[in-house]
Amino acid sequence: MRQVAIIGIGQTPIDEHWELSLRDLAADAAVRAMHDAGREGAGGVFVGNMMSGTINQQNNLGPLVADWAGARGGDAVKVEAACASGAAALRSALMAIASGELDSALVVGVEKMTDRPMREVTASLATAADADYEVEMGISFVGLNALVMRRYMHEFGWKHADFAPFAINAHANAIHNPFARLHSQITAQEFEKSVMVATPINLLDASPVGDGAAAVYLVPAESLASGARILVAASAASTDTLAVHDRPDGLFLKAAYKSSQEAYRQARVGPQDIDVFELHDAFTIMTALSLEACGFAERGKGIQLGLDGEITPTGSVPITTRGGLKARGHPVGATGVYQVVEVVQQLRGECGPTQIPEARIGMAQNIGGSGATILTHILVRE
Amino acid sequence: MRQVAIIGIGQTPIDEHWELSLRDLAADAAVRAMHDAGREGAGGVFVGNMMSGTINQQNNLGPLVADWAGARGGDAVKVEAACASGAAALRSALMAIASGELDSALVVGVEKMTDRPMREVTASLATAADADYEVEMGISFVGLNALVMRRYMHEFGWKHADFAPFAINAHANAIHNPFARLHSQITAQEFEKSVMVATPINLLDASPVGDGAAAVYLVPAESLASGARILVAASAASTDTLAVHDRPDGLFLKAAYKSSQEAYRQARVGPQDIDVFELHDAFTIMTALSLEACGFAERGKGIQLGLDGEITPTGSVPITTRGGLKARGHPVGATGVYQVVEVVQQLRGECGPTQIPEARIGMAQNIGGSGATILTHILVRE
Repeated sequence: MRQVAIIGIGQTPIDEHWELSLRDLAADAAVRAMHDAGREGAGGVFVGNMMSGTINQQNNLGPLVADWAGARGGDAVKVEAACASGAAALRSALMAIASGELDSALVVGVEKMTDRPMREVTASLATAADADYEVEMGISFVGLNALVMRRYMHEFGWKHADFAPFAINAHANAIHNPFARLHSQITAQEFEKSVMVATPINLLDASPVGDGAAAVYLVPAESLASGARILVAASAASTDTLAVHDRPDGLFLKAAYKSSQEAYRQARVGPQDIDVFELHDAFTIMTALSLEACGFAERGKGIQLGLDGEITPTGSVPITTRGGLKARGHPVGATGVYQVVEVVQQLRGECGPTQIPEARIGMAQNIGGSGATILTHILVRE
Repeated sequence: MRQVAIIGIGQTPIDEHWELSLRDLAADAAVRAMHDAGREGAGGVFVGNMMSGTINQQNNLGPLVADWAGARGGDAVKVEAACASGAAALRSALMAIASGELDSALVVGVEKMTDRPMREVTASLATAADADYEVEMGISFVGLNALVMRRYMHEFGWKHADFAPFAINAHANAIHNPFARLHSQITAQEFEKSVMVATPINLLDASPVGDGAAAVYLVPAESLASGARILVAASAASTDTLAVHDRPDGLFLKAAYKSSQEAYRQARVGPQDIDVFELHDAFTIMTALSLEACGFAERGKGIQLGLDGEITPTGSVPITTRGGLKARGHPVGATGVYQVVEVVQQLRGECGPTQIPEARIGMAQNIGGSGATILTHILVRE
């Protein structure tokens, strides 16, 4: 299998872009990535997106984005895996290059969520859950996560305030990321006093939606001179049951465990070798569960890493260094590509005040549904 | 690149399956394909689907289908390329195996379209076109094809009745396919008298929607003893502009030309070597355009093949041998997989009265949007 390198990245600020259409956002990120790579066009365009059909009345994003970004003619598809669509598109593109079918690929994650009323967005987000056995019962996506969080607090004895460091760190880091949705520092008191969404999840436990696009440009590593390359050292995907209630243990992200173990195996590293970890903090509870499933903390102890300050840029397990889903924002189908763009920025040393010194190995993990589809990628600078 | 073989196929009848959900249909086809292959589970599940988000309020079909079919744990994504979603999912799976990342894959095309009112289905189908520059102007998907057909008739001097053989052949062949949506023979007179949909396209020019699922099981060819294998000898994708009006020539399917030429190159064959061609006859006009773009007829002459009887099972270019989109039915995201299943049936010699004698090389072509995304696959029995 051919090794793949990332030679270009691009992103738009995440915001309510009422003046820009879905295609504008996608093409903006795509063109920036091509420019960064010094390339024009691409052998294939892999678009990560979840809700363009329901919110933007537009499917067939492959040719739409290829057309608008000036990368027409080759492969062009949309890959959907709910909130993990971005990483799933990346993995499809990686396999296309690894197979020898393509010699270059553009991966574009895009989501335009703010044009429709919030109730429609909520309904669209709920399509990530089980329509017949979860949503039909009246539960929303945040509601599902709230049940998981409540059970976690009960099982392991944590209180709501213990989750605060995850949100505080994300907001503090986002201040230095010009592409982030939110640029406001928050305090532990504000975290506790924030408005309730679905008890125990309040507004500052939850990530904001938004409009945005991110892109990466891939080529076979063999086509580059070695030195200063950023290689995709691991790509792994795993699935669990779609419905949370079908799992023997609702507090264990089995697909995160399996995909991270497989990724460690491929990259020949362990959790202790990861310099930066962009995880999927859609809700603070997911941060705890991801840290635990990926081997950074024991079961029920992920919270402690936050309380001990280990998750900040100067800690032992730096996470959400550009703001994470919580403060960079969560344009769902684009998120997985934003994470990879941010890991590349860390490996290139472009992160200013939140730069991890001499970062060489970075991991990104993207979650679709309530843990149903989880993809883990490890990038290495060499 | 590793060569890939198809060792299992499965399909459901296409119908109004009000008693079955999306997951039931998908799992039914998937389980049949696994059974046919003599396998349980798969390294990855690639679901081709277009409109589950808009019509079924369900995204994240990867884990849904993997879960329900008993193929949980590995890769699982939905691939969307409008009506070419099925072939796009197949191509993603092929590249996953070719890259060495997976050693088995299940490709499942599924669409459940008949649960919602027809106006919603029409709106959902229109998401295959350009939302901002075509649909916003009030044109439906059939309306777009009607403009193309009218122009074709004007440009090349054909009259509506000349398109009849395409529909008549499809209906005649579907009678012998137990999975087909329609089992009624039609006459040239019925074709001409059929109710108008969008002039000049009438009901018998157009393919019926429906609920259905089809699946194929893929493994590396090297894992099988040679002899009686069905190999994927070519897989090629190409895109054109999303909007028809952006093309210099709206009567030439450039993406069909490019992807078929690339497929011929990979399989080292030409149009004259194709024993059976399952093409994308969503409308009779598309049959003519496909035959021309793929080298079976000159520009403007595709109609002649129908008038000369060359497209029937005993002709020189047998098409839609199991009924095609026209009479087998067109559950949009599933269609591309049905086509491949049918080519496999031909190569296995399972097609009864519409069997092409000693069929050895078959081609399937799946079109997304009005020619925006076109994938061509060639299968060979050896």
